[in-house]
Amino acid sequence: MEQDVRFMEMALELARGVRGQTSPNPLVGAVVVQNGQVVGMGAHLKAGGPHAEVHALRMAGDLAKGATMYVTLEPCSHHGKTPPCAEAVVAAGVSRVVVAVLDPNPLVAGKGIERLLSAGVEVKIGVCAQEATKLNEVFFHYIQTKLPFVTVKTASTLDGKIATATGHSRWITGEAARAEVHELRRTNDAILVGVGTVLADDPELTARSSGELYGKQPVRVVLDSQLRTPLTARIVQDPLATTWIFTTPEASEERRQAFAEVKHVKLITLDAPLSVMAVLKQLGELGITSLLVEGGAGVNGSFLQAKAIQKIISYVSMKLVGGKEASTPFGGAGFATMDEAVTLKDIAIKQVSEEDVRFIGYPRWEQHE
Amino acid sequence: MEQDVRFMEMALELARGVRGQTSPNPLVGAVVVQNGQVVGMGAHLKAGGPHAEVHALRMAGDLAKGATMYVTLEPCSHHGKTPPCAEAVVAAGVSRVVVAVLDPNPLVAGKGIERLLSAGVEVKIGVCAQEATKLNEVFFHYIQTKLPFVTVKTASTLDGKIATATGHSRWITGEAARAEVHELRRTNDAILVGVGTVLADDPELTARSSGELYGKQPVRVVLDSQLRTPLTARIVQDPLATTWIFTTPEASEERRQAFAEVKHVKLITLDAPLSVMAVLKQLGELGITSLLVEGGAGVNGSFLQAKAIQKIISYVSMKLVGGKEASTPFGGAGFATMDEAVTLKDIAIKQVSEEDVRFIGYPRWEQHE
Repeated sequence: MEQDVRFMEMALELARGVRGQTSPNPLVGAVVVQNGQVVGMGAHLKAGGPHAEVHALRMAGDLAKGATMYVTLEPCSHHGKTPPCAEAVVAAGVSRVVVAVLDPNPLVAGKGIERLLSAGVEVKIGVCAQEATKLNEVFFHYIQTKLPFVTVKTASTLDGKIATATGHSRWITGEAARAEVHELRRTNDAILVGVGTVLADDPELTARSSGELYGKQPVRVVLDSQLRTPLTARIVQDPLATTWIFTTPEASEERRQAFAEVKHVKLITLDAPLSVMAVLKQLGELGITSLLVEGGAGVNGSFLQAKAIQKIISYVSMKLVGGKEASTPFGGAGFATMDEAVTLKDIAIKQVSEEDVRFIGYPRWEQHE
Repeated sequence: MEQDVRFMEMALELARGVRGQTSPNPLVGAVVVQNGQVVGMGAHLKAGGPHAEVHALRMAGDLAKGATMYVTLEPCSHHGKTPPCAEAVVAAGVSRVVVAVLDPNPLVAGKGIERLLSAGVEVKIGVCAQEATKLNEVFFHYIQTKLPFVTVKTASTLDGKIATATGHSRWITGEAARAEVHELRRTNDAILVGVGTVLADDPELTARSSGELYGKQPVRVVLDSQLRTPLTARIVQDPLATTWIFTTPEASEERRQAFAEVKHVKLITLDAPLSVMAVLKQLGELGITSLLVEGGAGVNGSFLQAKAIQKIISYVSMKLVGGKEASTPFGGAGFATMDEAVTLKDIAIKQVSEEDVRFIGYPRWEQHE
């Protein structure tokens, strides 16, 4: 039914509008329709707050009786921080529920649908399923693996350089692309770099808009086996966001002590050498559902080698810089043959400005030898 | 007038159809229109053969009297291998001539137009000028500089690698992109590689279509200071195309002698070290109007450093291979800072297949410090 698609797209749009503020919860939108008229709409705004269905039902009031509800994710059936939505939907007298995708959360996983059906509510599943799955790619990955969804963002020249041979890298991309990166930071729970980037660029790693801090600030994560991060680094000096430094027993006690007094910096010690998977596991346990890797060649190369990348966002600037010794987006050992290279799927290409092109893709690890 | 654009676009299409077969002459198309009906059309097919105007006038016959002629380039006014076209146009009784662009050839340069005007023919200049200039970008460059128009073609992964860290490079791009490269070869007078590519890949450097030799074969040019090209190399063994090896006095007499007996191979000795500009000057003198550089990082880097690139065609494959030691499309010293990187203009981006994206751009040397 065409109308089902139309109203589900509206529900998806409501959910997209609050991207970056619901973690660790999924993005969910809901629309209540009575006789072809929208009588209620809502989105889940914040973990701990009411679910999308509840907002939409409140707006609809008595008009929910006999109405159709469109919801981008299966209504929950369990008592969490809020009562189960499936109950609320039934109690409101909704007669039909259209769902985009089932909730992979083992606590829900079809039980919400069962509750609706047992109460005599008509249920349709799978409308705009692809869009709804992509919308919650982070949540679905995290709920199933307990590891953060890893996005690696790179910026390079058309000839594949992330810096000149002498290490100069400001700026590769133009303002439009750099503004998008701030939005990416805002919508990820954490940003990760290597200590090399801290030493070379002393980045702030905050999410800004027009130069001002904007939205929820992601946790700043640094991989630093020997704790070489200077106490004077911006991510240590400024309390604009929390900083977690992953280190190993190789770091001296003296260096550790130096950081003990800095409140917004936390040291996390793992076995040496630091492994990408161990770091991700720890981040997942600390509730990080999405991680934006903004590493140099070394860090990005380690994530590639570990096959620990779910998504690539690659900005390519329409310029040539040359240089045999210039760094590229992914270093490390690399794969030995071109057949072993990991191919990307669901490619989206967009020219974000006259000077820069953005590629989005998803590594096909399932086909990777 | 809308009709002028329509018929000029037709003339441009006639010219495009014979791309790669008119060197060192320009691509020219002509259409004769009488009362809104096309009565003649033609293109310049081959150096030494009739010009486009002559073909079109022949087809039109008596109907050329009082007609309008559309021609993509100013009709010539000088006696070359064929009599001047401006005379032929006047003699045929054409009453109006629409020209896309003037001929920058100093032997013509406005004189064709003058001849037409003095005979009372109405002349309009500049219809589809941009397309016509791009169509003959090679001819215009060559006629003005006496140097070949240099196109550098590269193929890399999304992370900027032209080979893996171990040197493996087959294949980076898929079939659709590779087929395009053969068309590029066919439409260039010569292809250039470094001896490193000969030693590593032993390429044939021919233009093929579905595996078969196709069209005019470009001259194969190798930069080889010390004459390390093996006698067993395909470009030496096969007589499918002429091979020119640029070398220096550093090459031994013994090596030189070895090549003396190979008829389709010619050695060209220049001062050491080989300079890109000296090679281009020599190629220009030898009548090469267009050069396709398919070098590795070293050769491409030399052309970049020499600012001797007119056009870039860059295939980017939607895959990641990693590798700190992997080669990139442009090596050499490179520019020192990102501000010095040369930016590209007139960017065209096309996804040529699911796996590959093609970028075309023109370096803005005029803005380059």
